Amino acid sequence: MTAQLYCFGESGNAYKVALMLTLTATPWQPVFVDFFNGAARGPAFRAINEMGEVPVLVMGGRTLTQSAVMLRHLAKATGQFGWTTEEEEDEILRWLMWDNHKLSTQVGTTRFLMNFLPADKRPEQAIAFLQGRLKAAYTILNNHLASRDWVVAGRATIADLSLCSYLYYQEPFGFARADWPHIDAWLARIAALPGWQHPYDLMSRAFPPATA
Amino acid sequence: MTAQLYCFGESGNAYKVALMLTLTATPWQPVFVDFFNGAARGPAFRAINEMGEVPVLVMGGRTLTQSAVMLRHLAKATGQFGWTTEEEEDEILRWLMWDNHKLSTQVGTTRFLMNFLPADKRPEQAIAFLQGRLKAAYTILNNHLASRDWVVAGRATIADLSLCSYLYYQEPFGFARADWPHIDAWLARIAALPGWQHPYDLMSRAFPPATA
Repeated sequence: MTAQLYCFGESGNAYKVALMLTLTATPWQPVFVDFFNGAARGPAFRAINEMGEVPVLVMGGRTLTQSAVMLRHLAKATGQFGWTTEEEEDEILRWLMWDNHKLSTQVGTTRFLMNFLPADKRPEQAIAFLQGRLKAAYTILNNHLASRDWVVAGRATIADLSLCSYLYYQEPFGFARADWPHIDAWLARIAALPGWQHPYDLMSRAFPPATA
Repeated sequence: MTAQLYCFGESGNAYKVALMLTLTATPWQPVFVDFFNGAARGPAFRAINEMGEVPVLVMGGRTLTQSAVMLRHLAKATGQFGWTTEEEEDEILRWLMWDNHKLSTQVGTTRFLMNFLPADKRPEQAIAFLQGRLKAAYTILNNHLASRDWVVAGRATIADLSLCSYLYYQEPFGFARADWPHIDAWLARIAALPGWQHPYDLMSRAFPPATA
């Protein structure tokens, strides 16, 4: 049965799962969420995900939300990009947690504020604040990758697929790959995995919103 | 063997684990981290946790970081506050993820900016921005609790212990329990669990920092 992924191109959180589905050759189809017209905030979508967040994965009779839950589910279902020991499982989850509270959330928010809001509505102080916190996060990831090719276990796992997701987007958010050489080389390694595709090649873009 | 928890009183993320250890009657002792004097950012602590974050749990020969990883580990080790099916495990993890990227992180940051910085260094626009995002998060949690006593599975789990953690602190961060009646009743239910204690009764406070 073909999996359905509620998504839109600008969502790095959706990209994490779209990339995993693609790299594992899991049959899937995107269900476009018209995010910038408010589709994720309406009652129809809230009935699917009370958190009002993209992505949502419908697969094998289950409806999953939160990208980390989906990545773990797909790793178990496909036997790929997962763990072989409890220690590896914990280490992968540790980086999924860090990604969700220190990296992806703050990149996603900063990129949204800088690119998808009218220029006169951008909260410049909040953007500067987030960029300062992100610099600390890039430093931690860059240092971690200085002595290893992959985040956990010496091979590509869902930890890599989660952490990399927002860093392939071209829109400016204060991150230049050249400033972080170990992150840069790691992003190139992930992009060289067989079947890798850019988010905008996997999912339709929702910005700019179509006029009603 | 007594577990060691690197922690300080103001850390809601540490409190999640301290509360779990206490409620499960797991022998543990706090290891005080002098956070406001920069102890979590120094090389000695970075050698323990490259992420530079509190808490860290040392237990049974393992060193764990990220509160969600510790909570899952303790649930499995003690057989308490955990899951009985894969669906419950996923549902608990879903809320742990949401807590980490939408609730606790943003409450912790907002409370820090409002209470632990000098008044003339508070980024007021960033605070207002975070409070706006938090209002959306409180709404989701309050709605979820309108029709149930516990977040997942009809009983207290680590999802509750994670989500509640920052909401017991008295310092102002823009949250009034009376405004969110279902959250308020749920916090009272958790506080009525046998052995519950407030974070400042479980861990030493690090603020204000002692003069060197």
